[in-house]
Amino acid sequence: MNVAALASLALDEDWGHRDLTTEACIGAEVVGTGFIRARKDLVVSGHSFARAIFAEVGRRLGSEIAYTEIVPEGTSVAKGADVARIEGSARGILIGERPALNGLMKLSGIATHVGAYTRHLGDSKLRVVDTRKTTPLWRALEKAAVRHGGGHNHRFALYDGAMVKDNHIVAAGGIAEAVSAVKAGTHHLVKVEVEVDRVDQIPAAIAAGADVLLLDNMDDDTLEQAIAVARGIDPRVVLEASGNVTPERIAGIVARGLDLDVISSGGLIHQATWIDLGLDMVDA
Amino acid sequence: MNVAALASLALDEDWGHRDLTTEACIGAEVVGTGFIRARKDLVVSGHSFARAIFAEVGRRLGSEIAYTEIVPEGTSVAKGADVARIEGSARGILIGERPALNGLMKLSGIATHVGAYTRHLGDSKLRVVDTRKTTPLWRALEKAAVRHGGGHNHRFALYDGAMVKDNHIVAAGGIAEAVSAVKAGTHHLVKVEVEVDRVDQIPAAIAAGADVLLLDNMDDDTLEQAIAVARGIDPRVVLEASGNVTPERIAGIVARGLDLDVISSGGLIHQATWIDLGLDMVDA
Amino acid sequence: MNVAALASLALDEDWGHRDLTTEACIGAEVVGTGFIRARKDLVVSGHSFARAIFAEVGRRLGSEIAYTEIVPEGTSVAKGADVARIEGSARGILIGERPALNGLMKLSGIATHVGAYTRHLGDSKLRVVDTRKTTPLWRALEKAAVRHGGGHNHRFALYDGAMVKDNHIVAAGGIAEAVSAVKAGTHHLVKVEVEVDRVDQIPAAIAAGADVLLLDNMDDDTLEQAIAVARGIDPRVVLEASGNVTPERIAGIVARGLDLDVISSGGLIHQATWIDLGLDMVDA
Amino acid sequence: MNVAALASLALDEDWGHRDLTTEACIGAEVVGTGFIRARKDLVVSGHSFARAIFAEVGRRLGSEIAYTEIVPEGTSVAKGADVARIEGSARGILIGERPALNGLMKLSGIATHVGAYTRHLGDSKLRVVDTRKTTPLWRALEKAAVRHGGGHNHRFALYDGAMVKDNHIVAAGGIAEAVSAVKAGTHHLVKVEVEVDRVDQIPAAIAAGADVLLLDNMDDDTLEQAIAVARGIDPRVVLEASGNVTPERIAGIVARGLDLDVISSGGLIHQATWIDLGLDMVDA
Amino acid sequence: MNVAALASLALDEDWGHRDLTTEACIGAEVVGTGFIRARKDLVVSGHSFARAIFAEVGRRLGSEIAYTEIVPEGTSVAKGADVARIEGSARGILIGERPALNGLMKLSGIATHVGAYTRHLGDSKLRVVDTRKTTPLWRALEKAAVRHGGGHNHRFALYDGAMVKDNHIVAAGGIAEAVSAVKAGTHHLVKVEVEVDRVDQIPAAIAAGADVLLLDNMDDDTLEQAIAVARGIDPRVVLEASGNVTPERIAGIVARGLDLDVISSGGLIHQATWIDLGLDMVDA
Amino acid sequence: MNVAALASLALDEDWGHRDLTTEACIGAEVVGTGFIRARKDLVVSGHSFARAIFAEVGRRLGSEIAYTEIVPEGTSVAKGADVARIEGSARGILIGERPALNGLMKLSGIATHVGAYTRHLGDSKLRVVDTRKTTPLWRALEKAAVRHGGGHNHRFALYDGAMVKDNHIVAAGGIAEAVSAVKAGTHHLVKVEVEVDRVDQIPAAIAAGADVLLLDNMDDDTLEQAIAVARGIDPRVVLEASGNVTPERIAGIVARGLDLDVISSGGLIHQATWIDLGLDMVDA
Repeated sequence: MNVAALASLALDEDWGHRDLTTEACIGAEVVGTGFIRARKDLVVSGHSFARAIFAEVGRRLGSEIAYTEIVPEGTSVAKGADVARIEGSARGILIGERPALNGLMKLSGIATHVGAYTRHLGDSKLRVVDTRKTTPLWRALEKAAVRHGGGHNHRFALYDGAMVKDNHIVAAGGIAEAVSAVKAGTHHLVKVEVEVDRVDQIPAAIAAGADVLLLDNMDDDTLEQAIAVARGIDPRVVLEASGNVTPERIAGIVARGLDLDVISSGGLIHQATWIDLGLDMVDA
Repeated sequence: MNVAALASLALDEDWGHRDLTTEACIGAEVVGTGFIRARKDLVVSGHSFARAIFAEVGRRLGSEIAYTEIVPEGTSVAKGADVARIEGSARGILIGERPALNGLMKLSGIATHVGAYTRHLGDSKLRVVDTRKTTPLWRALEKAAVRHGGGHNHRFALYDGAMVKDNHIVAAGGIAEAVSAVKAGTHHLVKVEVEVDRVDQIPAAIAAGADVLLLDNMDDDTLEQAIAVARGIDPRVVLEASGNVTPERIAGIVARGLDLDVISSGGLIHQATWIDLGLDMVDA
Repeated sequence: MNVAALASLALDEDWGHRDLTTEACIGAEVVGTGFIRARKDLVVSGHSFARAIFAEVGRRLGSEIAYTEIVPEGTSVAKGADVARIEGSARGILIGERPALNGLMKLSGIATHVGAYTRHLGDSKLRVVDTRKTTPLWRALEKAAVRHGGGHNHRFALYDGAMVKDNHIVAAGGIAEAVSAVKAGTHHLVKVEVEVDRVDQIPAAIAAGADVLLLDNMDDDTLEQAIAVARGIDPRVVLEASGNVTPERIAGIVARGLDLDVISSGGLIHQATWIDLGLDMVDA
Repeated sequence: MNVAALASLALDEDWGHRDLTTEACIGAEVVGTGFIRARKDLVVSGHSFARAIFAEVGRRLGSEIAYTEIVPEGTSVAKGADVARIEGSARGILIGERPALNGLMKLSGIATHVGAYTRHLGDSKLRVVDTRKTTPLWRALEKAAVRHGGGHNHRFALYDGAMVKDNHIVAAGGIAEAVSAVKAGTHHLVKVEVEVDRVDQIPAAIAAGADVLLLDNMDDDTLEQAIAVARGIDPRVVLEASGNVTPERIAGIVARGLDLDVISSGGLIHQATWIDLGLDMVDA
Repeated sequence: MNVAALASLALDEDWGHRDLTTEACIGAEVVGTGFIRARKDLVVSGHSFARAIFAEVGRRLGSEIAYTEIVPEGTSVAKGADVARIEGSARGILIGERPALNGLMKLSGIATHVGAYTRHLGDSKLRVVDTRKTTPLWRALEKAAVRHGGGHNHRFALYDGAMVKDNHIVAAGGIAEAVSAVKAGTHHLVKVEVEVDRVDQIPAAIAAGADVLLLDNMDDDTLEQAIAVARGIDPRVVLEASGNVTPERIAGIVARGLDLDVISSGGLIHQATWIDLGLDMVDA
Repeated sequence: MNVAALASLALDEDWGHRDLTTEACIGAEVVGTGFIRARKDLVVSGHSFARAIFAEVGRRLGSEIAYTEIVPEGTSVAKGADVARIEGSARGILIGERPALNGLMKLSGIATHVGAYTRHLGDSKLRVVDTRKTTPLWRALEKAAVRHGGGHNHRFALYDGAMVKDNHIVAAGGIAEAVSAVKAGTHHLVKVEVEVDRVDQIPAAIAAGADVLLLDNMDDDTLEQAIAVARGIDPRVVLEASGNVTPERIAGIVARGLDLDVISSGGLIHQATWIDLGLDMVDA
């Protein structure tokens, strides 16, 4: 779903056939200016959604509303900072206010939250990445928010990366069979990742052709062994750890110097809460 | 957006044109059974979304998948409990797993979180309600999750309740003018709420015809005065407090016996994080 | 369905892939001006739909078409009056003509028809309102036309007002049970209406918590008794009469001074026929 | 728009996210039976829409609802007759009741109204047909209702028949140029109609290649001359009269034996009002 | 499906949530100019689609992109010719390049291919037409490409022309019954075509009221007899031949002077391959 | 666009509001059986589309139609072979016939055409792959047809593989900058391909981090040098050749033993024409 379509559906949901209050109190010809302001220290994300909201409100009212970014996405701002300016129909600004802020608060919440995970990375090559645990219909924006917050992404969906898990291996009749079946039908710009939860599974996974290993739910000592085994076989295989990832644990892994490429955690997105932004109208 | 349409878009997002892994490893004819299980103590919400996901996966595969609720929405279960059973195409169960769980984890997270606010109510008549701060396109399901968690809802959208705020009053030329303009065009099953942030605004708001007063950002002492003033003029006016609502504050308001009808907080929804559920396949 | 989407579907229906006549006879570069004119005395309604039609035609042709309201919605005009001006692609004006006029004729027909019901109200506080008997997909515009004609609206849909009828009472196990079940899940800006068709049902309905009573299919004498009983219990309960509503009957009720708040009739909308408007092209 | 899509949008409009009353009072597991009954003498039309409504309600509830036609479309029934039976979820039957009846009342209203025009035809070959003056998004169903009522249709839209009017002739530079331009781009199963409002235009129109003549706004004497001229040139040209068509005038034209093929009137559809049908639940 | 909707879906397909390469390498503020150039001699078709692609890319980026036709559709150009100019966001031009070219290559391929069939017509009245064998969702554009290439169209779909084939005749109980059933429900601007594959079927088809005869799979001698029989009964009946149509055969039919009106072949569209066009960026 | 949505739009296009012929001639209650038969030797592709067509026709008619695959996709069959069986409403089978066959003919045409490219591969590891030159909205099905024909796919779209071309390198300020910018924002399951058209560009491309090299428009001698250079630096880099790919050239490359991984050609899809299949009804 592209962001214009998402914004249009958001307005169907919140505006529907009529704003009982605003359409009664404010004339169609009144114009105004509003500022979106940070009510907390935060990292900005969500401009593309907010812009699409006001563009669609303007289109439906037949009266253009301008949305100007003051602070680009991915920027940290202090409480009180102006983040965007909105100019046009006063009626339209109030109608779009809530959906636009809902997107900005949600996405800036994620971008800000991600910093807790990435601040311990120092100059490590390690990437902290999200997962497919995202709010349905919001994945593209949530994953962009992760990038705005300094994180990286995992595959977007079932179609842009292959991930062989236990059920697949059982159904295919073995790890070699599974990886081979996947590679046969998959294009040459996509890698195949294999999930392992024991160190002794690693040689077979690499032999089967895994480009990436998901080291799942291993403690740090086990990770260390797993890394040693994998690097010993093929130093280029990409190593990803997941399970029980907290900011503290990331700090520990960095301190210990574990030679991982990627740590993944759904919590980057699903443990973030919204962060407060507001819209203030100013005199014309 | 009805839940079937939401589920269909969720599958477009996550499944798209192809599951590179599952469609390669698992034959179209293989059937299986899976159980959705709580991985934490939680209150269940999200069956309607999960059911719609598997119905749509089945429709696209041309092979029906049955989703059976084991625990109804609104029920508290302990970690480990089976929440739903899914039977049918193994391929389809794995394809629908992630979107279905994303919905269940998000919505059960809200239902469970709401309990923190409502557990202090005792037998008070007070309602704790949500706001319009909801994830765009997810409002109906998020507000249902609030009800599953023991909370109540505020108006759904701009069209099923009128809320007169400062900008409306200024534009209309006064509180009486604003309320009167709104009532003129609003049907007789919908009430008009007026936001006040000072006690001295209350008499004019009630005189203007407000059915409900939003007592915004008042501390408990001010609330007590506001309630006394309002009840003195019209004991039937509905009194709602909002701003800085925490579970602790609710406990205090109940303990103090403040004669409010409603406390509203966006945090019921936007400060909830996801709670863990998983899907386990069983042998056929 | 928002009005832009409705207009787009209307053009899919009438224009489809090609206007066999206009696209053959009139060059893409020809511009023109047209006036929409009343061919009868009428009350104007439908500008938002007509504007959306020409906006969408212009968008599809890649050539903007301006729609200017000459007479605002809700205004009575005499036969021959210019209602709107359209400027731009001559091809586009002719392509949009029929769908735009279909909307204007239908909606102005309703706005004009409503006057027959409201002209007897004098300075009575009584509201004449519509019902949910509306053309599917046209409800928002038809209900706006009722307001343009001087009427008021009833609830919009199943979600912005509760109406307890016989089947609900039977299923819930009694009137108190039904009202209580509805109130438990309904937000505090929405009222609950209970349908009664006998005077002796009124005390229980009010006791159950009805905010509004629908006095259904009662003759004027029965209405008088019903009003007396209801007002005696609670003077604030909103009283609505419905069934066999004609303009003449409204005149009688006003003359008799029955203390009702609302009279509802689906006929405001479904007994209206279209009223004639046409489009005349003028020389460039 | 196909009828399933239309029904789905109708339910989005009327049901939306929730039926506040029915979902509170009636359990999801309760089943029932309802009958749709004529409350007036009428000609039935609208089954396809009503069936699609209940199919979609059932799909959304995950519980099939059966809609059985008792009387086929196009049949005259007396007040009190059962027209259709609906069996399944009681909740679903009540939710679908209003949209389904709205479609049936509207379309049966048209089918019944058409009879006033066709009853004077006797065994004349004359067809009474509708026009493109139809409710946007309802054209296919309204035109089917005209057929159910014994009438015939004119072209459906701009793409399935060519109609050369004054503006086209002026723009093309003459009637021969206009007809020729249209024929050049139009396929060989579609005819070209030319509108004339004076008898002296007829020879040129036929010479230009018109397959059909629209004799617009002529009185009966002028029609008689026009027919004589046209038939004298080419007895096969199809002759259609329009303008000021009433049932009485049709009777007069038939009595006078005017050799027309078609009389067209938008009033078949846009002067029809709804006719009453209701839904009665029976004991399970 | 209108062309704007088609273009939007094409961008969902190819652009989706992100262009991994272009969005990383080229700033949002960079503008550029590109030319679409013929890489072969060809007949141009597809501007409406390409324009819609860049309009939608611009809308999504919030930055208008201008598409200017240099050579109109239906024009033959030599290899190397500039066909259109695109100005605006460099990012947007690269994002829209592939979908726009895919449409232009496909449609110009058809327009060019059609010339092979029409070049033998000389000044014959004969039309070479396409069929309903078209790429689903592309019919309007493919049929326009046939016209751009000098061909004509057959009916667009099942709703704008009637075609009685063997299965219909068997089901209706005879050719007269079939044609009569079709005519009863079909409007007076649409013709009825009857398929015959033997000369002896012709008299009955014409007697039944066929406006057009489809002479299916006859060799040239049989066609000659069929034409003689049909013209002898009614010289106005439209005669269409189909089956095994090649450019060479058309040349033969024209040389032989067979008095046909129409030759139809799905191959105009489905035997066309794409023809090469490219986009070259120029310095700003 | 999922295949069910594609099929629904295809029916809107071809069936629209009415099949003038079939709905008049064949009763709604008549059932039948049809077989889809190969009219040429071919490789089958398109069942998922055809099945979706008949499923949707059945849904709209309220009468299920069963589609049974007789020959699975990817199978070569001889002229005359039965490919699928369709059972249910005779009306529905005829309505769905043309769209279903259009999909099958188009896709089987591609699957069959691909064989011309792959038949020369012998036991080479070389993959012949398609490109993004596909019919908009048909990409998933066309790329599946390539697999059914024995070919492989290139990336699906702009979002599941990165391809750095000349314009990107210029805009980013160099090849290292471009690759690095892309890698920074791209997830770890997606590879980055760099296009080179001269051998001397190869070392820099590999040094920049290219996972895949596109050797564009090189003759076989140049390819040989390019391969030697690239393999000398990093034997694991994936090597793809494109430009002027014909079946004959593939044969030559295989014979010469060039150590490529992939040869890509848009012609697999866009130079394929449709291959003939038909539907034959059998007696009930």
